[in-house]
Amino acid sequence: MSDSFKIGLAGLGTVGVGVIKMLQQNADVIAARAGRSIEIISVIAGIKAKDRGVDISAYDWANSLEDMAQDQRLDAVIEMVGGSDGEIKSFVETALDNGKHIVTANKALLAHHGYDLAQRAENNNVTIAYEAAVAGGIPIIKSLREGLAGNKINSVYGILNGTCNYILTEMRETGRDFADVLDEAQEKGYAEADPTFDVDGIDAAHKLVLLGALAFGVKPDFDALNIEGIRHITSKDIRYADDLGYRIKLIGMARLSQDGNAMQSIAPCLVSTKSAIAGVEGVFNAVQTNGDFVDQTMMEGRGAGEGPTASSILADIIDLARGNNRLIFGVPTAQLNTAQWQGAEVLSCQCYIHVKAEDKSGVIADITACLKEADVSIDSFIQRGHEDDGSASVVIVTHEARFSDIQKAVKIVEGLACVLDKPTLLRIEDI
Amino acid sequence: MSDSFKIGLAGLGTVGVGVIKMLQQNADVIAARAGRSIEIISVIAGIKAKDRGVDISAYDWANSLEDMAQDQRLDAVIEMVGGSDGEIKSFVETALDNGKHIVTANKALLAHHGYDLAQRAENNNVTIAYEAAVAGGIPIIKSLREGLAGNKINSVYGILNGTCNYILTEMRETGRDFADVLDEAQEKGYAEADPTFDVDGIDAAHKLVLLGALAFGVKPDFDALNIEGIRHITSKDIRYADDLGYRIKLIGMARLSQDGNAMQSIAPCLVSTKSAIAGVEGVFNAVQTNGDFVDQTMMEGRGAGEGPTASSILADIIDLARGNNRLIFGVPTAQLNTAQWQGAEVLSCQCYIHVKAEDKSGVIADITACLKEADVSIDSFIQRGHEDDGSASVVIVTHEARFSDIQKAVKIVEGLACVLDKPTLLRIEDI
Repeated sequence: MSDSFKIGLAGLGTVGVGVIKMLQQNADVIAARAGRSIEIISVIAGIKAKDRGVDISAYDWANSLEDMAQDQRLDAVIEMVGGSDGEIKSFVETALDNGKHIVTANKALLAHHGYDLAQRAENNNVTIAYEAAVAGGIPIIKSLREGLAGNKINSVYGILNGTCNYILTEMRETGRDFADVLDEAQEKGYAEADPTFDVDGIDAAHKLVLLGALAFGVKPDFDALNIEGIRHITSKDIRYADDLGYRIKLIGMARLSQDGNAMQSIAPCLVSTKSAIAGVEGVFNAVQTNGDFVDQTMMEGRGAGEGPTASSILADIIDLARGNNRLIFGVPTAQLNTAQWQGAEVLSCQCYIHVKAEDKSGVIADITACLKEADVSIDSFIQRGHEDDGSASVVIVTHEARFSDIQKAVKIVEGLACVLDKPTLLRIEDI
Repeated sequence: MSDSFKIGLAGLGTVGVGVIKMLQQNADVIAARAGRSIEIISVIAGIKAKDRGVDISAYDWANSLEDMAQDQRLDAVIEMVGGSDGEIKSFVETALDNGKHIVTANKALLAHHGYDLAQRAENNNVTIAYEAAVAGGIPIIKSLREGLAGNKINSVYGILNGTCNYILTEMRETGRDFADVLDEAQEKGYAEADPTFDVDGIDAAHKLVLLGALAFGVKPDFDALNIEGIRHITSKDIRYADDLGYRIKLIGMARLSQDGNAMQSIAPCLVSTKSAIAGVEGVFNAVQTNGDFVDQTMMEGRGAGEGPTASSILADIIDLARGNNRLIFGVPTAQLNTAQWQGAEVLSCQCYIHVKAEDKSGVIADITACLKEADVSIDSFIQRGHEDDGSASVVIVTHEARFSDIQKAVKIVEGLACVLDKPTLLRIEDI
C-alpha cells in the first residue's frame, strides 16, 4: 500500500478544478486517510491552454480520452466530461476494460447504461464509484450502500436538483414567477443556459434512478419513471400552498412495497411545512430514506458546485486507494432484481388542485360535481380573490383517493366551459 | 470470501435482541451486501433462561466473556454489555489480542480508552467499529471517516442525546417543567431510572469525544470537555427563547480553528428556529458538520432504540465481512494529533441571560450596570410578567462578546441584593 494511487482526470471544468484544488490543499489529510498519496498522472480537457486558477504543469496532458483510458500507469480515471453516449461511453468502457476504476459525477451515463457498465466493471475486477453523481456533497451513496446496508429500504425521497429548489425557494420568498426567477438563476450561474435538464426534472430523474437501484437492489431503469418538471408552477400555487401549510418542492420519490411493486417519480409535490424536507431551501439538496430497522434518516447538504462535488469525488478516490471492496449497486449485478414498476396513478394520496375559472355563479357547483362524478371527495375548498382579467382561482385539497381517479376528475373539470386554463394538479406527499 | 463471517454477541438487551432479529429477518439482503453470510456462533448475557422474543437456541451459550474473547472460531465480537472499565475493558482487550474485530455501541469505553484500544487493535491487525456508539441509526461515523474524508473538518455540531431532546421538546410543547417531563420519560422508557448520564450531558459528551477525534484527527480526550446538562432549564427559559426566535437544545460542539486550537463543549444552547438543527425534535438526533470543501452537511435520524442501533451494528458487521480496511479514527493512531484544547470561555458569542429578581424599581438599572462593568453590551432586554411570589423575570440577549466576560458579568449580577436566584446563562449558537 505504500505506492501512490495514480489517477487521470478527464474534464477540467468547475468540478475538475475543484478536485485538483482539494488534492493540492488537503494532500496531508488525504494521504493519511487513504493510507498512501494520491497522484495525478495525467489530465485532459477540450482546451489545453486556459487559465484555470490551478497549476497543472506537473501533470501529463493526455493525447486523447482513448489514450488516457489505456494508460498503463493509472489505477483510476476520474470522468468529469459528462454526456451519456458516444465518445464518453466508449472512454469509460475502454478504461474499465483496461482494469481502471472509474470515479464519476456523470448521473446521465449511469442512469442509462449503469447496469451494463457495472457488469463490465465486475468482469474486469474494478468498480464504478459515483458518490458525486447524486446530491453533490452529501455522502448518500455511501450511506445507502454501506451505512444502512443491514436494512430493507422501503422508500427514498429527495430534493435532488438545486436549480429547481433555488427557483422554488426564490419564487416563494419574493412572490416572483418562474420565468423571472429562472432568468436570475441563469445570471447567477445556478441554472444552465439551456435549463431543460434541470427544470424539466431530467437531472433529478437520473439521480433518482441510481438511488432507487441502490436502495432496493434492482436494475436501474430510467424508462420506468414518471417525470414532471416545475415550469407550470406559478407563484400563486406557491402562495396558496403556503396558506394551506405546505411548501412546493420538486420531489424525487422511489418506493418499494412488500409485494415487490416499485415506483419512481419526479414531480413537484406539496409537503407539510412541518416536515424536515420542507426546510431544505435554496441550492441545498436532501435525501430522506426509510429502512425497516433504522426507520427514517435524512441527509442534507449542498447539491452541486466545485467544493461539494469535489468532496464526493475525493471520498470515492480515498476509498479506492484504501483498497476497499465495493459493489456498484450494493449487491453483485447478477443479483439485482428487475422491479415491477408501477406508475404514479396507482398511488393513494391527497392532492392539491388549482383551477382558474370564470368568476360567476354556479362555477363551484360545476367543479364539485366533476369531482363527485370521479368519486373524489373534498377535504378543503377555497375560492381565492378575483383577478384583473375577471377570473377566479379555485383551490381544492382532496381527501385521500387513488391518484388516477383524481387525474380523471381534473380532466373532467378541464372540460368545463367556465374553466379558463389547464388546472394544476399536484400530489401532497406525507414525508 | 465464501466462508461465513462468524460473530459472538455479548449482551442480549434491547440492542442485542435487535441485532439477532435483523440478522434473522434480513439474512438475504445482508448476505448479498456482505458477499457472504453472517453467522452467529455464540452469545452471552447475564441471565441465560429468559424469554427475549427471539430464538437463540441455535447459538452456543459462551461460558464467560473471557471464553468468548478467546473463541478461535470468531471473526468478530459484538460488545453490547456496556461499562467503561473492569471486566468489559478486559473482554475487549482480550478479544483484540486474540485477533477479533470489535463492533460496539459502547461510547463510554471508547471515550475513555479509545486511543489505547485503537493502538491495541492496530497492533493485532483488527479494528474497532463503533457506528452504533454515536447518534443511533445515523451513519455519521462512516460519513465523517469516509464520506467526507477529503475535507478538513472545521466544526461538528450535534444533538446527541435523545432523552434530553425529548425532554426539551416536551417541555416546549406542553409548558411543563423538567422534573415532570423526566418522570414521564422514565415511564415511557425514554429515560433510565438513573437519568444522570443522559440529563447531565455525560452520554452526549462520550459521543462528542468520538466525533471530534474522527473529524479532526486528534486523540480522543474526554477530560478536555466542558459538560453542562439540562436540569437547570425551566419551561420559562424555553418560552422566553421561543418568543425571541430560538429553541433550547442540548448542543454538542467540537471546533478546530486554523491555528490548531480546538474546543469541545456539551451545553444547552439557544439556536435560531430558522436553523435546520432547531427542527430536530423528540428522540431524534442530528449531526451537522462543516468541511472546507463540502461546506455544511446535516444528518438526522433516530438516536437510540432497538432497530436504529442494530442498523448501525449491522452496517459495521457487513463492512468487516466485506474485508474493508478501516482506520478507527480515520488515520493511523500514530498520526493522531494532540489537540490544544481550549475552554468555552474563549468563545466569542451572544448569550441569553435570565435573571429572577425582586419586582421593584431600580432593579433594571442595577443589572444593566453590572453588564456595563464587565464590558458586555445588550442586544435586547425584556422584563417578563410578575410572578405570584412577587418576583420578576428579566431576560437579556447580549451582543457578541467574549464568553468569559459574559460569565463575569453574570457573576456580578448574581451578587446583587435584588437578585433572588442563580441567573441562567446560555450561549446562543449560530449554527
